[in-house]
Amino acid sequence: MEQELMKKYARLIVKTGVNVQKDQTLIIVSPIECAPFARAMAEVAYQTGARDVVISWRDELFAKLRYQMGPDEIFDEFPAWQKDMFVNLTRQGAGVISIAASDPELLKDVDPDRVARAMKASTSALKEYRERMMAHRNTWCVVSMPTKAWAAKVFPQLDEEAALEKLWQAIYQAVRVNEADPVAAWQQHQAKLQAAMDFMNGHTFRYLKYKNGLGTDLTIELPKEHLWLGGSERTPGGVDFFANMPTEEIFTLPLKSGINGTVYSSKPLNYHGNLIDRFCLTFEAGRVVSFSAEQGYEVLKNLLETDEGASFIGEVALVPFDSPISNSGILFYNTLFDENASCHLAFGKAYPICIKGGEGLSPEELAERGVNDSLVHEDFMVGTADLSITGITADGTEVPVFRQGNFAF
Amino acid sequence: MEQELMKKYARLIVKTGVNVQKDQTLIIVSPIECAPFARAMAEVAYQTGARDVVISWRDELFAKLRYQMGPDEIFDEFPAWQKDMFVNLTRQGAGVISIAASDPELLKDVDPDRVARAMKASTSALKEYRERMMAHRNTWCVVSMPTKAWAAKVFPQLDEEAALEKLWQAIYQAVRVNEADPVAAWQQHQAKLQAAMDFMNGHTFRYLKYKNGLGTDLTIELPKEHLWLGGSERTPGGVDFFANMPTEEIFTLPLKSGINGTVYSSKPLNYHGNLIDRFCLTFEAGRVVSFSAEQGYEVLKNLLETDEGASFIGEVALVPFDSPISNSGILFYNTLFDENASCHLAFGKAYPICIKGGEGLSPEELAERGVNDSLVHEDFMVGTADLSITGITADGTEVPVFRQGNFAF
Repeated sequence: MEQELMKKYARLIVKTGVNVQKDQTLIIVSPIECAPFARAMAEVAYQTGARDVVISWRDELFAKLRYQMGPDEIFDEFPAWQKDMFVNLTRQGAGVISIAASDPELLKDVDPDRVARAMKASTSALKEYRERMMAHRNTWCVVSMPTKAWAAKVFPQLDEEAALEKLWQAIYQAVRVNEADPVAAWQQHQAKLQAAMDFMNGHTFRYLKYKNGLGTDLTIELPKEHLWLGGSERTPGGVDFFANMPTEEIFTLPLKSGINGTVYSSKPLNYHGNLIDRFCLTFEAGRVVSFSAEQGYEVLKNLLETDEGASFIGEVALVPFDSPISNSGILFYNTLFDENASCHLAFGKAYPICIKGGEGLSPEELAERGVNDSLVHEDFMVGTADLSITGITADGTEVPVFRQGNFAF
Repeated sequence: MEQELMKKYARLIVKTGVNVQKDQTLIIVSPIECAPFARAMAEVAYQTGARDVVISWRDELFAKLRYQMGPDEIFDEFPAWQKDMFVNLTRQGAGVISIAASDPELLKDVDPDRVARAMKASTSALKEYRERMMAHRNTWCVVSMPTKAWAAKVFPQLDEEAALEKLWQAIYQAVRVNEADPVAAWQQHQAKLQAAMDFMNGHTFRYLKYKNGLGTDLTIELPKEHLWLGGSERTPGGVDFFANMPTEEIFTLPLKSGINGTVYSSKPLNYHGNLIDRFCLTFEAGRVVSFSAEQGYEVLKNLLETDEGASFIGEVALVPFDSPISNSGILFYNTLFDENASCHLAFGKAYPICIKGGEGLSPEELAERGVNDSLVHEDFMVGTADLSITGITADGTEVPVFRQGNFAF
């Protein structure tokens, strides 16, 4: 039975998630602990007519050892051969599945400066690759499966086996694999997301005002011709895919210079194995001008200092408080799940596709339109049960968007 | 205790085996199942001052799935990024540890033509890398550790845990990790190998005549200025290393056109996951002119047909029948161990270092000297308890080299 569900999940990801096409190459980025699942996806891909599957293995325990024991200079480098793999294969049209299953506590004893530098080197080397993904020129899908260390963090009261089993069930629930026909369930889900996008795109709000009992009081200006997107994406060639599984959000971008006020985090942020928790950010003209954090202050500081764009916002996303992952009550310590339990914002790079015709604009033109750019794109959660969001149109009309944590329409 | 021995083993490999130098990069080619051992070696390398460690992960179950399900054309290709990794890092002086721990039965249901083509693509792409290794321009060390599938093949009567434990013990015995001071034990071992090399090099034999009860009756002509080597090697920069752990052999090369007669295999040959067993080869003027095999005939045929040099011999190696691995009585189904239990020959490429000044000769000059070249280099076992080898010098003097399977001197 367990094997059956895993195969059903692998099938959903390869067919509906990354939507592998005949003769396409598929890259699977997989922790070594997830090998049986990576192989199950590879099998479906070959059955579906994929030309080839390349598995890029990750071992986070080795990565940690390297951070702790390696000489300082290596953390500013990224291996050319690894860059070539990702850039060349995606230039040739490869799709990418990434299994996000880190131990949330992995890097807590590691020098955050080393991690920040390594991340910067990696995002810098893989810029073209990331731009392709963000412009949806290639199909990609971020998914997850339980690993021992992660399951132990989510369910510390359970033994290893029970924690793994419970996390599998939570994931299957979140990605609708428990349903008789997961593919049909995803089609219905897509229709609901479409209704929310139609409401938001229909109003073309100029501002969104966020308020809640944590103390959040934030005004976000949206750029002209912004677009609310969500659910499945489509490549220029017309292939539909889901970039995340699960996904419950609809999202757009803010005007880079248009954010003012204060926002409080509502869930911890796991940034490359480091937790940042109970943090608060104050914005002026789009930039973070002050911040505090009860946990992970240095990590947050490093994140914000990655580059100029890292202290501006690149994404505004709406998720009802009453949604499957939120209702599970589980804190996953994994952005893929936690972002789909809560309204969120993202530090850093905005998706050019969130502005009309944005895919065709140069970096300079995007900047002129108020589209933020950065090496990072990192979500953080701001949604609460009492969150209120009010939309204000160009003529000053106020329209309830969220009331008591959920869509008001 | 188990952890302790593994760490002692890791230390021996990194220090005495590949002999990592300060600021050197170390590549570890490791099955994903061997992650704890790969990490243990990485830790020693960083402690020793290595600049960086790159782990190239292998998953043989995925490799098998790919062989079985991938489209036919992909098996003639080798990924450019993987070639670049090995070639560029070793050009920069990297050392390489390879963990050889395949399931001996892995590829038995796989089309041997696909395997042969993939091996040919790989050896062809990695030609420069392999030549560096064979000329000892870089340090390298092939080692092993038990994996579940391999242990089950070696000890089919034991359960999984017991088989793994028994194979660990057999390996520790073979590599002298059980001894109080493994490094000193390897120094003594090196001295013994040196005495055997001195005997063989002192006689400068022109021919070796092999005979045993299996039916072997083979004459091997050795080229002028051949050298018997064994034990530790030395890079041009003066770094000593052991290319194999264990190693019990001393070896040289034959004159390419100088082999005549018939030789019978004395152990199965595991060729990239396929067993070739109870085979017999007849040579004329160095070339295999006929052959038979009770198991794996097609695999042997593919191996011999890889290229022109694959049906000639590139190595002649002497191992006493009374040596530690031979005495263990274990058939490892793994060349690293089985070749060190038995006198052997190798199909394919000869080591240029086995001829005086060979490192400096061009491919054409090597060919003129009778040095075989090929994309493959594959050992097969011919030693038996009754093997007799007689050396014949240029003036016709006959000198006993082996009697009853052991050195006669």
